[in-house]
Amino acid sequence: MSLENKFPGKDISIEDIKTKFPLAAKKNKNHKSRFKISGVEFGSNQIPIFAGPNMVESEKLILNCAKNLKKIGAHFLRGGAFKPLTFPYRSKKYTETREEGIEWLKRAKEEYNIPIITEIMEEKYIDLICDVADILQIGSRNMQNFPLLTECAKSGKPIMLKRHYGASLRDWLGAAEYLLVEGNKKVILCERGVSVPHTHRSTSRFLLDLQVIPAAQEITHLPIVSDPSHATFWRDWVSPMSLASVAAGADGIMLEVHPDPKNSAVDPLQPINFKDFKILLKKMDKISKTMGKFIIKGR
Amino acid sequence: MSLENKFPGKDISIEDIKTKFPLAAKKNKNHKSRFKISGVEFGSNQIPIFAGPNMVESEKLILNCAKNLKKIGAHFLRGGAFKPLTFPYRSKKYTETREEGIEWLKRAKEEYNIPIITEIMEEKYIDLICDVADILQIGSRNMQNFPLLTECAKSGKPIMLKRHYGASLRDWLGAAEYLLVEGNKKVILCERGVSVPHTHRSTSRFLLDLQVIPAAQEITHLPIVSDPSHATFWRDWVSPMSLASVAAGADGIMLEVHPDPKNSAVDPLQPINFKDFKILLKKMDKISKTMGKFIIKGR
Amino acid sequence: MSLENKFPGKDISIEDIKTKFPLAAKKNKNHKSRFKISGVEFGSNQIPIFAGPNMVESEKLILNCAKNLKKIGAHFLRGGAFKPLTFPYRSKKYTETREEGIEWLKRAKEEYNIPIITEIMEEKYIDLICDVADILQIGSRNMQNFPLLTECAKSGKPIMLKRHYGASLRDWLGAAEYLLVEGNKKVILCERGVSVPHTHRSTSRFLLDLQVIPAAQEITHLPIVSDPSHATFWRDWVSPMSLASVAAGADGIMLEVHPDPKNSAVDPLQPINFKDFKILLKKMDKISKTMGKFIIKGR
Amino acid sequence: MSLENKFPGKDISIEDIKTKFPLAAKKNKNHKSRFKISGVEFGSNQIPIFAGPNMVESEKLILNCAKNLKKIGAHFLRGGAFKPLTFPYRSKKYTETREEGIEWLKRAKEEYNIPIITEIMEEKYIDLICDVADILQIGSRNMQNFPLLTECAKSGKPIMLKRHYGASLRDWLGAAEYLLVEGNKKVILCERGVSVPHTHRSTSRFLLDLQVIPAAQEITHLPIVSDPSHATFWRDWVSPMSLASVAAGADGIMLEVHPDPKNSAVDPLQPINFKDFKILLKKMDKISKTMGKFIIKGR
Repeated sequence: MSLENKFPGKDISIEDIKTKFPLAAKKNKNHKSRFKISGVEFGSNQIPIFAGPNMVESEKLILNCAKNLKKIGAHFLRGGAFKPLTFPYRSKKYTETREEGIEWLKRAKEEYNIPIITEIMEEKYIDLICDVADILQIGSRNMQNFPLLTECAKSGKPIMLKRHYGASLRDWLGAAEYLLVEGNKKVILCERGVSVPHTHRSTSRFLLDLQVIPAAQEITHLPIVSDPSHATFWRDWVSPMSLASVAAGADGIMLEVHPDPKNSAVDPLQPINFKDFKILLKKMDKISKTMGKFIIKGR
Repeated sequence: MSLENKFPGKDISIEDIKTKFPLAAKKNKNHKSRFKISGVEFGSNQIPIFAGPNMVESEKLILNCAKNLKKIGAHFLRGGAFKPLTFPYRSKKYTETREEGIEWLKRAKEEYNIPIITEIMEEKYIDLICDVADILQIGSRNMQNFPLLTECAKSGKPIMLKRHYGASLRDWLGAAEYLLVEGNKKVILCERGVSVPHTHRSTSRFLLDLQVIPAAQEITHLPIVSDPSHATFWRDWVSPMSLASVAAGADGIMLEVHPDPKNSAVDPLQPINFKDFKILLKKMDKISKTMGKFIIKGR
Repeated sequence: MSLENKFPGKDISIEDIKTKFPLAAKKNKNHKSRFKISGVEFGSNQIPIFAGPNMVESEKLILNCAKNLKKIGAHFLRGGAFKPLTFPYRSKKYTETREEGIEWLKRAKEEYNIPIITEIMEEKYIDLICDVADILQIGSRNMQNFPLLTECAKSGKPIMLKRHYGASLRDWLGAAEYLLVEGNKKVILCERGVSVPHTHRSTSRFLLDLQVIPAAQEITHLPIVSDPSHATFWRDWVSPMSLASVAAGADGIMLEVHPDPKNSAVDPLQPINFKDFKILLKKMDKISKTMGKFIIKGR
Repeated sequence: MSLENKFPGKDISIEDIKTKFPLAAKKNKNHKSRFKISGVEFGSNQIPIFAGPNMVESEKLILNCAKNLKKIGAHFLRGGAFKPLTFPYRSKKYTETREEGIEWLKRAKEEYNIPIITEIMEEKYIDLICDVADILQIGSRNMQNFPLLTECAKSGKPIMLKRHYGASLRDWLGAAEYLLVEGNKKVILCERGVSVPHTHRSTSRFLLDLQVIPAAQEITHLPIVSDPSHATFWRDWVSPMSLASVAAGADGIMLEVHPDPKNSAVDPLQPINFKDFKILLKKMDKISKTMGKFIIKGR
């Protein structure tokens, strides 16, 4: 089969694979990265779940989430203390909690023994954030902030690299290569929705690109996580799109969960509550098991 | 919850629902159309499968497909005798078989007792095509060919309306309303991929929009089918995207199946063969059953 | 220069030019179609102007437009009697005038001696519309309605082929080839805006693609007209985008002009009035003259 | 006129203008920022021209450009010493020249007395770059790197903020607000092409969004520059799109010019040479004068 046939869209060539992102590319058809982070295996039959609020709003909120999400079955607690906000003005409620938020995450981790993933936006906070985070999250808007990528990679911490909502798979793998070239091997990709012509909008902001899951898995050995909450921006669609993500072969699922979604400090239309998270987890687990994978061990 | 909140993307308003497509819109939360076509139920717990070649290339091909696909478990045989081709020149192989193709479909139907879905492009062929088709297919490019929609609806035949690759859900429901307003109640929607910025391309032509499934089901009572073959244009991704379609809640699945995919007259990269269809059918059935639905009866 | 270099986006190959649309393609660098329609030259230094209301709302309106637009300097009167409307319901005001509208266009043409361009949507109206139209307009939604294209081409009438808002240049030239292959040589392309990710929306529905003007002129000898009214959907941007169209090398400009824009039956935000049309015509003429072209003869 | 009518696309509301970017928003219809940078006026009738190579490849190259571009009529010399590159590997030719490149820009500025614009990617280089730059350029990929924006703004240097190829006008003005809120008043916007569905590609990578020029000018008082070289990625289209930019009302034009385009270290298909720059400058000047503006003083 010719190259033309192999990659019909032609955005990625054999040459790219050899010279642009040789470390991100698979060495052979069955090549798949497999590694553990804080005892949770990635790239295997297990599908790790990341859950938590959009923002680390308060100590009380994050302790509540840590306790309940761990009990329900989440493998990682997510939550942003540092967050890129589109406009420079902050209301009392809608604000970054920064150093304080990191402190609260630390307490949640200690008290409930749940590993943490949180966003990093600036080189100067690497030490602070590495002190609590089990995984550093690079947000969509920083996907091509190459100096930041390099410094994060050098820290040795595992990294989750979110895809920019306007980025091709090619550009995304180029950014991942910046991490791998520093010797960091624990790199996870995360799809969180792409922007599409407004004529396509089914009344949401972004469209979760599930086709990128088999597309990425064809080319790279890195695990790829799906984040339906940010993509759909609409609570009611989180469940169908999470189940579809598992069925499409996602190597992990990231979800926004909040004890009181309507009063979430940001984007109150998108988080689900603890109860719905529990129901969804069971449904995802059922589907994963038809595929020889699992979310909840045993059974 | 305010309207603003109800439809965050704002493409569809309560006003639209009341005045632009009142017949396509749900009357209440649980409103769902349920009807039978040639003994197969739509809008229920069953997920009908449409399978067959892109084009009705020859009598031999279509009889072969009818026999085998029926045996494996397809509910409808698909295949185009009339087809919109982007350029006016035809090779010997890559050509519409038109009246002859319709004749072959008829023979396949009679011999193997499998219902037929095939595309209609012109008013003048309605009688000819209605003579064999159990469902008229309106292709993506004709989604807004309103005179054609009206005439097809008047025939009384069930209709599958494919979404244009650049159409919003709003425009799509507007086109469906043209069918419903003629009194035709057996209308099926079909998602077949949207065009996205080239920077998003995961190396394919279109992106299957699975988010439109819950989005459509929130607003309309019409069943919605997913067609992963045309969207992905790439055989290897058909299986994950079909499974994801079922998990996202699709009310039916349309697949391109060919006994010898590499020698398909058109788009040889996208059909799967009989063997892979059989495997996929079982996987889809398994997932459907975790959701309280089914593809294969019993078990 | 290699093919790769010649067409960096790779959507159009040398092979396409030779086998998919050989009649639409330029024979050499300086090849440009030049023909007259009702005394107005296309493909030369003259930039013909098409002006008129969106819909032929009434006899009075169209006679008023014919009289005034001719006097101001429009070369063709535009106006739709048949029009594809997204939803099937009509208010008293917002309705097609069909046969009656064609009759009114005829009277306007006879009384004020201005050539007519109007849309055709169905084969069965070809004779009716050819009786009055100097140019048949194929609308965006029918760009790939190939049976309609073929029948229109056979009529021998000049044809303006609008680009679908989701169509590539490649598909557009494929559609033009359907016209040329019937022996019809008076084919005009018309750009009217493409749909783009909602994140790009500068508060409009479509984005006028001016880059397609040099792109098309590099490959085809057919004249290409720009229609800023439909693209911008916003009166205030019509003037800058019309001037930009002339500067980008457009071979003609189509504008929506209405004596009382706010009371236009459709899209009241987009037409300009007679006075603004007159001012704009002079500005466009000035720019065209810096480029060795002209809109208004003499001076 | 209602808000709905004022902003038909609804991406920007009156509320946004008041609370999200009050400093970037116009105070009244005629509000327009007007300021001088190194003696060149922005926001007036003059249209400043930025010209130079993509990368500061060598001292010889940049001195050659400074000398010739100044003589031809460029107001600012552009050239990147620091540059975000999609992949981490560098060939000998295709590499950032970093501190050395900044040194060479300094020599060019001193020797030929031409003001400099160059890109900044990291906070730690602010002092180094401010030492030579008259304008700091924030590249497309850093448009929402908010900590970088804040630090650059604090330096007091004028800033050109390029639009991300996937950013809405709303997000862009949000980023500009981050600069203005620090008290920096010399902020310039720069449009450099947006990514569009591949079906629209007229064989280029990006589509220059000229509609955003009147759209931005309707809402903000900040000057807006157009960069046709990066958008078109294709030398032959730079001239028509530059002329169209001037006609659309651009407040400045940025061009990639190289003495030997085919041997440019990056993107050799896009720069024009000195001779073509001279011709284009005269054409742009002619068009600007039909609009009561000018590029070349006098005449």
